[in-house]
Amino acid sequence: MLVFSRNANHEGETKKLDFPQRVIAQTNKKIDAILRGDLKILRNLSKYVVKSGGKRIRPLFLYYLGRAHHLPANDLIALGALLEIVHAASLLHDDVVDHADVRRGKPTAARLFGNKEVVLGGDHLLSTGLKYLNSLKNTHYMTVFTDAICALTEAELLQMEYQGNFATPLKIHARIVDGKTAVLFRAAGALVKILSNTQADFYHSKEAQLGELFGRYFQHRDDFLDYFDAKSLKKKGLQDFKNGIATRPLIFLRENANPHDRKILTNAWKNIQKGNVQSEAIVLSLMQKYAIEEKCRELLRKDEEEILDLLATLPEPKARGVLIHEFEKILAVRTK
Amino acid sequence: MLVFSRNANHEGETKKLDFPQRVIAQTNKKIDAILRGDLKILRNLSKYVVKSGGKRIRPLFLYYLGRAHHLPANDLIALGALLEIVHAASLLHDDVVDHADVRRGKPTAARLFGNKEVVLGGDHLLSTGLKYLNSLKNTHYMTVFTDAICALTEAELLQMEYQGNFATPLKIHARIVDGKTAVLFRAAGALVKILSNTQADFYHSKEAQLGELFGRYFQHRDDFLDYFDAKSLKKKGLQDFKNGIATRPLIFLRENANPHDRKILTNAWKNIQKGNVQSEAIVLSLMQKYAIEEKCRELLRKDEEEILDLLATLPEPKARGVLIHEFEKILAVRTK
Repeated sequence: MLVFSRNANHEGETKKLDFPQRVIAQTNKKIDAILRGDLKILRNLSKYVVKSGGKRIRPLFLYYLGRAHHLPANDLIALGALLEIVHAASLLHDDVVDHADVRRGKPTAARLFGNKEVVLGGDHLLSTGLKYLNSLKNTHYMTVFTDAICALTEAELLQMEYQGNFATPLKIHARIVDGKTAVLFRAAGALVKILSNTQADFYHSKEAQLGELFGRYFQHRDDFLDYFDAKSLKKKGLQDFKNGIATRPLIFLRENANPHDRKILTNAWKNIQKGNVQSEAIVLSLMQKYAIEEKCRELLRKDEEEILDLLATLPEPKARGVLIHEFEKILAVRTK
Repeated sequence: MLVFSRNANHEGETKKLDFPQRVIAQTNKKIDAILRGDLKILRNLSKYVVKSGGKRIRPLFLYYLGRAHHLPANDLIALGALLEIVHAASLLHDDVVDHADVRRGKPTAARLFGNKEVVLGGDHLLSTGLKYLNSLKNTHYMTVFTDAICALTEAELLQMEYQGNFATPLKIHARIVDGKTAVLFRAAGALVKILSNTQADFYHSKEAQLGELFGRYFQHRDDFLDYFDAKSLKKKGLQDFKNGIATRPLIFLRENANPHDRKILTNAWKNIQKGNVQSEAIVLSLMQKYAIEEKCRELLRKDEEEILDLLATLPEPKARGVLIHEFEKILAVRTK
């Protein structure tokens, strides 16, 4: 099963197997197999999860990180499918509570299937995933997943507690980012460590650290694009601002603005939820005045360097190459 | 820790420990300890779950069944608390999707805390419970709980699929009862078997069978009372009929009624959801005409006999006595 074999005879075949589109297809197939059920609504939800898919960035991250450690593809696909199922369940419940109609340019599940279906469907995704996970009979996997799910729901609750709060501290925001996004990438790193049979201290491994850094970067980049290049996400801009969610750009602006500008910003924050379109332009001009885009870009660049340094230390050059390549595709979106 | 010790010196103390109110108090304390968190909403939800409580029939069933097998109280309290947390999480999500404002005479969590809080709060209950369960490091426990949670959500989805369907077959209804209610009692039985260190085939044990029978009986009794003695549940009558949920009384009536009466019943089914108060009286008079109360009562009595026969085979007489006593208190409500 080892793909990065030195055996030249297998090279063509293995390259094909490790092609990102192929990894995504395998992941989708595995998700489908785990979620198979005889209820119509389950089949539809399963199809929706497989089809809506997004970039499958969590399974891809796990897969290439694992391949860079010479780990078997099947195990990585299975664990990646589980990460994606947990992620999908969390998105489904997030859809319901936000009354969000569109996610990344597509109508949400809540709109397509109804709130009731989505709450129960999310529950079923999660429980079916956990049942499959349990069948793998590895208590360390279970520890990583139950920790991650717990952190995920706690972060969702924390975000809800601070929703609409203009004064959300940077520290709270960091905790939300860690719990909402970084946690599943950190879990991917820990799972790779466990699969490498070096189970002790899997959370304090280089792999878990890389996952956490990558996850944080991924979220901060998303929050950055929401203000400064929403089109690249196929989203309308300032979604977070409109939803009353304070992210890094807003928090930096709030901290840097003089009292007069801060008052203007506070009013825009209050008015935008009433549908005041002018507020959007006011926020963006203040962002420009205080050079928030540059400040955020600089922080993202530092994150990128740290991540690339860690990626460079991975043992297997080909998978490392793919990970860096994929990572750079993400960078390309941002810096174009 | 063994309560049913022959040592006379401990008898007073141990009797106190095994008193149902004491078991409930210990269970509540344990639930509180498992759910402890630093978020305000979590503290409130935890309080709500502990306070709203209901009869804690699942933990009590597990406790006395376990004591009847001479099992340590601490383990039984912990597992019972977990059963109750899973049950509470399921009720929270059920509240949201039903837009139910009152459950057993109390305002629902969704009303008290908001939909958003309840979806995420339910997720957090479940994930915190699973995290604690995982820390007990018993893969058989994990199997029982993940199976149960999966069956629970599948039954909720099945019930949703058939909601409003007048022609719901008895077989589907039985599957919903098994998944929605019997499953957690069956799990209690299986957990007792696992804790007795006879892990093989814990699902095919007498204990799991007893749990399943008891759970089914408990649900059928609830459905019976909803038509024939709702006051004893502190509920308004015909809730299931009004919510478009077909239970045994309705299914029997539908099957027994002549074509003319079936047509009347079908119209009542359609009209009651539009708030037609007369429909209620029509349904009840048809129930009387076809002696549905007596038919259901007869089936419940058969279940009771089967359960009492199984209870009589339990090894420990005192705990067995309490279980039978508690069970008879349930009977008393029904047959008064």
